[in-house]
Amino acid sequence: MTTPEDRDDLTTPDRASNTPEDNTQGPSPDAGQQDPNYGMDIHLQPDFVRAIVDAIHADDTDTARALVADLHVADIADLFEVLSSEERRSLARLVADALDPNFLSELEGAAFDDVVKVISPSIIADAVKQLDTDDAVYILEDLNAESQQEVLHALTREDRTALEEGLAFPEDSAGRLMQRHLVAVPEFWSIGQTIDFLRAQEDDQSPNDFYELIVVDPAYRPIGTVPLSRVLSCKRPMRIKDVMNPDPHIMHVTTDQEEVARQFAKYHLISAGVVNDYGRLVGVITVDDIVGVIEDEAQEDILALAGVSEGDVNVSIRDVSRTRFIWLFVNMGTAVLASLVIGLFDATLEAMVALAVLMPIVASMGGNAGTQTMAVAVRALATKELSPANAMRIVNKELIVALINGVGLAIVVGIVGMIWFGDILLSLVLATAMIINMVVAGLSGIMVPMILDRFGVDPAVASSVFVTTITDVVGFFAFLGLAALVLV
Amino acid sequence: MTTPEDRDDLTTPDRASNTPEDNTQGPSPDAGQQDPNYGMDIHLQPDFVRAIVDAIHADDTDTARALVADLHVADIADLFEVLSSEERRSLARLVADALDPNFLSELEGAAFDDVVKVISPSIIADAVKQLDTDDAVYILEDLNAESQQEVLHALTREDRTALEEGLAFPEDSAGRLMQRHLVAVPEFWSIGQTIDFLRAQEDDQSPNDFYELIVVDPAYRPIGTVPLSRVLSCKRPMRIKDVMNPDPHIMHVTTDQEEVARQFAKYHLISAGVVNDYGRLVGVITVDDIVGVIEDEAQEDILALAGVSEGDVNVSIRDVSRTRFIWLFVNMGTAVLASLVIGLFDATLEAMVALAVLMPIVASMGGNAGTQTMAVAVRALATKELSPANAMRIVNKELIVALINGVGLAIVVGIVGMIWFGDILLSLVLATAMIINMVVAGLSGIMVPMILDRFGVDPAVASSVFVTTITDVVGFFAFLGLAALVLV
Repeated sequence: MTTPEDRDDLTTPDRASNTPEDNTQGPSPDAGQQDPNYGMDIHLQPDFVRAIVDAIHADDTDTARALVADLHVADIADLFEVLSSEERRSLARLVADALDPNFLSELEGAAFDDVVKVISPSIIADAVKQLDTDDAVYILEDLNAESQQEVLHALTREDRTALEEGLAFPEDSAGRLMQRHLVAVPEFWSIGQTIDFLRAQEDDQSPNDFYELIVVDPAYRPIGTVPLSRVLSCKRPMRIKDVMNPDPHIMHVTTDQEEVARQFAKYHLISAGVVNDYGRLVGVITVDDIVGVIEDEAQEDILALAGVSEGDVNVSIRDVSRTRFIWLFVNMGTAVLASLVIGLFDATLEAMVALAVLMPIVASMGGNAGTQTMAVAVRALATKELSPANAMRIVNKELIVALINGVGLAIVVGIVGMIWFGDILLSLVLATAMIINMVVAGLSGIMVPMILDRFGVDPAVASSVFVTTITDVVGFFAFLGLAALVLV
Repeated sequence: MTTPEDRDDLTTPDRASNTPEDNTQGPSPDAGQQDPNYGMDIHLQPDFVRAIVDAIHADDTDTARALVADLHVADIADLFEVLSSEERRSLARLVADALDPNFLSELEGAAFDDVVKVISPSIIADAVKQLDTDDAVYILEDLNAESQQEVLHALTREDRTALEEGLAFPEDSAGRLMQRHLVAVPEFWSIGQTIDFLRAQEDDQSPNDFYELIVVDPAYRPIGTVPLSRVLSCKRPMRIKDVMNPDPHIMHVTTDQEEVARQFAKYHLISAGVVNDYGRLVGVITVDDIVGVIEDEAQEDILALAGVSEGDVNVSIRDVSRTRFIWLFVNMGTAVLASLVIGLFDATLEAMVALAVLMPIVASMGGNAGTQTMAVAVRALATKELSPANAMRIVNKELIVALINGVGLAIVVGIVGMIWFGDILLSLVLATAMIINMVVAGLSGIMVPMILDRFGVDPAVASSVFVTTITDVVGFFAFLGLAALVLV
């Protein structure tokens, strides 16, 4: 039997069972069965997916429903996402009305579009009714205008207005992320009053699970937060104002979700009140919704640096081709520019074909070094580790690093050139061009993102095309130009 | 005055003050003062940093302490991070013993190393005593062995053992992330019993703020969770087992933090029990600690793709140069390999110098296209959107996208070639090589990360060198090889 006293075991070494000594005994015989990851993500197992696909093709409603019956809504969403577009629609037709409608708020991109195409607006309306406002808004914002109206009309006037207000906030703003049902209490309440108030809430009035109370002043402006664990561990007569954390972190409805996420991460927030222009509390954002935002924002940066605007593997071939082509086309301009620089030296190249053989080394090493610095700069700007306060120091540092590595690589490439072509002068030209391009790469890797950021352009999206253009052009120009001067 | 009924306003449109209509009135006159972001991150303002630096150089303890007095611990950490290494040490000497020792757990990398070098082990020991086990372990793991021992000896035997056990778990494992103080209750308890138990906890026994109770069976295995909001809103006689969420998500002590973070994000977890090999609950991980992990892991992927192992702008020049040089050196091998391929065709190049001018276009466009596909694949593998269940579908899709974009770019580059050199055969060779290299780029962009992942190598770290090697070699070989066959 577990008694309250048992929990103190956890820090009592002689009874806790995960001491280092225990580990040396290896897992117990039944460890396999207790592996907590066992059975996780089972929907991603090819066998399970195959069984689902078979049921879809056999149009076998019962089997399909039985297979998905015990899945978590997030797993159901993942299952839809691994299927092809047609399979998704067929599966939705077979099982949608038997599912917890919450799975809709877990679906992303193309999978969401496929599923809502075939399920009835009444199922979507049911989902929207049950969900927190932020999740409901997430579903609604992805519907086309017609379905959106259909769903909104199926709601009560009150729910509809709340959602319409949510949709009126800019995309990716705190207003879209926030949950409107919340619990706010005045600071002069006692713990006892607060608990009685919470117990008296009717189910449809109280928000889903929450973790902190927001303390408001008479004008309904947030002035503090109280973690629920503190409400539970304090005696009934204590006052809210004596246990609250003052100076709450507050978001404005229009604050960008990236900034909201940055503050949650930095200050380890569990929830934050959202206020309107008048400072009045209108909603609350909880950390579980922010986790997804942080993943999305970091993902966006990764993909943007690689020239991809959409990382969802489920986007249609047409959309993927189009968005990637635009980026490739822009880069083609860069590549042609680099070729024009080479073209300036065609006489030099004709005189010495070894230059053509070696020239890509200088350009490509510059590109690599520039990309390294750029990735660090883009992330440091996003996390605000790089700011006007330390910009000079960081630029100086990158310059020194570029010089050190430039000299190092120049020595290596000089030796390679000597061994290959046995030409000291050629090797010296190669080494000098390498140093020049590495320094230019380091400088442009740090300066380009900083300048873009200053002008309000997202450095993750635009930096790499500038940096590689600079390193290509400078790389070819320095190498071939020096060769034209010295060698030919 | 705020009454409980007020909170229902939030969904009552006629009284909520953020209706779209309100927005059209523009901000209220005092909106500027109420801007919740106003004053945020003030430590990053150059003026503030300059004032701190001045105080450091003047060795002015009072001013320095006054300036940092009201900062949040996270802001203090950020302040240290924008300073130079010497300034950090001076500031730590001036203010460390007046600061909330929690700021230590907010410091990262080089800034942490600088600060702990100059503050006394007793301050560190004080911090460690006050912190959650996970934060204390975070501080200890970054200390050198000597300081670690010094700090551990300043602790009580019980605290010391708990931390030593924490340090015994692998780096980046759930065991390192978990908090050992937790509240677990048996399922047969009533809500009333639970509240009484929580109120009876002495301060030094109860964990810091927490958000869910973990329900355990008699063998202390987790069998459910109860959000505290549910404890607060239920009547005293209700039983824990009737309000708990069954089937809790459980982590094993050795589970990698990346997998822990993925499950938190996917299942919107607020906390998760951590068990040992025997399935016994030994700790709890809360979402506020996971937010940092998610940021770090995504950041790692971004930097790894760019060939950087350390994104901290505060790492020393020597360390930065060394780690980046290793990557550049590896890439130099790639570049030389590409040059060797070009070298095979020196006679061809000598016969037609236009080939040297155009050849980087084919290689660089292949590199760009390969990077696009690779970035998507690396992220999809990390989030498990790409799995054996849908691998074939995704590979086929990438192949089709590569073919479409290859043909598109081939037409563009063919026209460029015609305009520039007026040579149809040369343009056809260029266009054909482009199609070949784009298809190879698409295939290698998706296959290389998948193969690396299958063999347990982190695709984010190793993919790009393989992909660019392939696209360079194939690009030069296809273009110059075709030219040798057709043109010369």
